[in-house]
Amino acid sequence: MNVPSAESAVLQLLDGERIRTLLFAYAFHLDMNHPAQLASLFTEDCEVVYGPGFGAVGRPAYEKTLSGIGAFFEATSHHVSNIVIDFTGPDEAQVRSVLYAWHRYRRERPDGHLWGQYHDIVIRTAGVWQFKRRELRTTGVKDFHVKEMIPIGRA
Amino acid sequence: MNVPSAESAVLQLLDGERIRTLLFAYAFHLDMNHPAQLASLFTEDCEVVYGPGFGAVGRPAYEKTLSGIGAFFEATSHHVSNIVIDFTGPDEAQVRSVLYAWHRYRRERPDGHLWGQYHDIVIRTAGVWQFKRRELRTTGVKDFHVKEMIPIGRA
Amino acid sequence: MNVPSAESAVLQLLDGERIRTLLFAYAFHLDMNHPAQLASLFTEDCEVVYGPGFGAVGRPAYEKTLSGIGAFFEATSHHVSNIVIDFTGPDEAQVRSVLYAWHRYRRERPDGHLWGQYHDIVIRTAGVWQFKRRELRTTGVKDFHVKEMIPIGRA
Repeated sequence: MNVPSAESAVLQLLDGERIRTLLFAYAFHLDMNHPAQLASLFTEDCEVVYGPGFGAVGRPAYEKTLSGIGAFFEATSHHVSNIVIDFTGPDEAQVRSVLYAWHRYRRERPDGHLWGQYHDIVIRTAGVWQFKRRELRTTGVKDFHVKEMIPIGRA
Repeated sequence: MNVPSAESAVLQLLDGERIRTLLFAYAFHLDMNHPAQLASLFTEDCEVVYGPGFGAVGRPAYEKTLSGIGAFFEATSHHVSNIVIDFTGPDEAQVRSVLYAWHRYRRERPDGHLWGQYHDIVIRTAGVWQFKRRELRTTGVKDFHVKEMIPIGRA
Repeated sequence: MNVPSAESAVLQLLDGERIRTLLFAYAFHLDMNHPAQLASLFTEDCEVVYGPGFGAVGRPAYEKTLSGIGAFFEATSHHVSNIVIDFTGPDEAQVRSVLYAWHRYRRERPDGHLWGQYHDIVIRTAGVWQFKRRELRTTGVKDFHVKEMIPIGRA
């Protein structure tokens, strides 16, 4: 194992906190229906992949994707845990986390549940960590409105 | 961004660990039905807000609120994630987290589920972090016995 | 409270990250159905206790226990939060965490849910943290195939 100096270890621990905060800000603004704040968490050239044929390249396209979500759900709750951060450089990291998401629809139908994984690439630009790439892989769903998802690749 | 010195950064990282441990101790003692240990996590002048008209001011009043809970539930499980700590001073922080709570009742009725947010003010007194204020906001519930909750304020 | 030196504090914070990563690796490889990688997270003389009369002593016995799991579930999702690490030495810690696990069966039956606690002893051998002992205690289940579990000991 690469043992960092005490000082660089502290910097990396602080970056870990900031990156986790980024993931939690995403969940918060999604559940609060704050599309502008959500989009600001992504780089201009971001790539977001929610499913096969469902996602966006570039922040403007992503903002468009978000615009329909607010009216679709009555409420959502995104619970992010199991966060593993793998630094690939001083300003870049790969991040894997686990998601449990609950969805209440505006239409009369049962609540939707999703259990999945986020696979992210995050980078630091001008001192701020942002999502460069976010991919949602789905372990399973119950009463969810989306039918085609990216599988986690269980053996 | 305010870049702290290495030493003060370490102190803040340690405080972050202690504050998270406080949140987890609350969940643990609630699920274990340990009202005395629960109450000890709060300051003497604490304010606890579980809903409109449901809460307590001061630790003695909070202990009274807790006394009925043990007999009401057969079991509960509180899952706390998405913790964001915002230090407002060396001995004070605002904390936001996300809760998924499962409840099994003693009475014959379906399990209750709650998805919500905790909004806390924590302070350090004599070296120990405690809740000064804890507010539960509710994103949604399913088969839960409480009907009136504080909403998260989704846009 | 024992206040560590800045340097030893940093080492302990780093160890905390590594131990959490160990818990998350367990959940990941379980959900991905990677029995060999799962077993590698345990010491040779490990003890795994999933329930009364269900568990294993020693890594070979544990690997045997794992072999049937892949075929039994269509999918699982393990969400680990509320992690509290108590260092009992420079290379040993007791760890308590909370689990929400969702299970989809291959057989036609409702999804199984488990809410519980992990109680672990982790040790560092040759620089790597591993589980020496892992015990699952169960707060409650819904439509789960296992009937006898170790209770959390709610008062």
